Amino acid sequence: MRKVPEPTVKRLFYYYRCLKECESNMSCEYICSDLLGEKTGIKSNLLRRDLSFFGHMGRKGKGYNISKLKNNLENIIGLNNQWNIALVGAGNLGTALIRYNKFRKMGLNIIEIFDNDLDKIGRKIDGYIVKNAKFIKKIINDQNIKIVIIAINDDDIENVINQIEKTNIKAVWNLSSSHINLGNEVVVVKGDLCCSLGSLLYNINN
Amino acid sequence: MRKVPEPTVKRLFYYYRCLKECESNMSCEYICSDLLGEKTGIKSNLLRRDLSFFGHMGRKGKGYNISKLKNNLENIIGLNNQWNIALVGAGNLGTALIRYNKFRKMGLNIIEIFDNDLDKIGRKIDGYIVKNAKFIKKIINDQNIKIVIIAINDDDIENVINQIEKTNIKAVWNLSSSHINLGNEVVVVKGDLCCSLGSLLYNINN
Repeated sequence: MRKVPEPTVKRLFYYYRCLKECESNMSCEYICSDLLGEKTGIKSNLLRRDLSFFGHMGRKGKGYNISKLKNNLENIIGLNNQWNIALVGAGNLGTALIRYNKFRKMGLNIIEIFDNDLDKIGRKIDGYIVKNAKFIKKIINDQNIKIVIIAINDDDIENVINQIEKTNIKAVWNLSSSHINLGNEVVVVKGDLCCSLGSLLYNINN
Repeated sequence: MRKVPEPTVKRLFYYYRCLKECESNMSCEYICSDLLGEKTGIKSNLLRRDLSFFGHMGRKGKGYNISKLKNNLENIIGLNNQWNIALVGAGNLGTALIRYNKFRKMGLNIIEIFDNDLDKIGRKIDGYIVKNAKFIKKIINDQNIKIVIIAINDDDIENVINQIEKTNIKAVWNLSSSHINLGNEVVVVKGDLCCSLGSLLYNINN
């Protein structure tokens, strides 16, 4: 397979979610790229190019088979698995993420919460006890956690990195402002909110 | 100027923030692309290409002038202005955003909060009273608000869109799962959290 560009990867989830809705709400079996594009807000030629990376060319005059494409994207993205997640940071953002019920529907289950703030450690958030960040390494290994969400202040990040680099995690979703490098084996996806707003400002100005 | 690709736009803020830190913490005047790349986690050839869109070629053997590049990026992104923002959605995510102090440092000031939940309307969050979502249009116009953050459930979005399309806002940061189209005059930046995690899953699987 050709190397899939990152912007294409980001759009896959939009196609998937839209197809899932179509599968539930539409009576027809096929959807054309124009309509799928309209529903997702993505130009249909870009959408066709994105899907062609995965061998989905659509059928001339018919479009894409909704269920088939949905199922394929589900496999391609990896939404057919369950993942144990540790959240580091029980502040406002962390708490919002714990309560965000859409992650669980994607098979993403936050099962451990850590913080280094003594006021937060021991408290319960939605049934989960906030644990001391000094046990991150041990608990991640014990619980077979593969994904870590980092939602802490940049000042506290070094201790977290030191611990998670000694585990077998596969990915980090980094909501802090710090750059995190965990080598080639660990996927790090940036989720920095300031960066999103920076891009919004740029687009207003240009 | 050549059309700047969206991934380049997204990286500008990382360069800017890193240069700002360098300006405060480093004694030297110049930074080479390798070091700036290392600090931001972006490959130096990509970084050089990104900056070349804005005429920044660096100086052979010296690199980039830290303050000059920082100031230029500040102007290019539009971080030298103050913006009034309305937040629609006073749930967990909305509350986390209000309390997220980094936005204010970027000149982004949430000054109004709306919700349609009667339990939330009238309550104070960090000193701001949550107002009834039916007044969005009026208050946005009265307060000269130019940016709207949407952090509500998809079911409630239609009423919000109906109101904000009758205002003079310039941009929407859309944290909901719904696709929002407000025509060519309004920038819509997607901030959907599920999509970020979708891309993380894809990268684990592939």
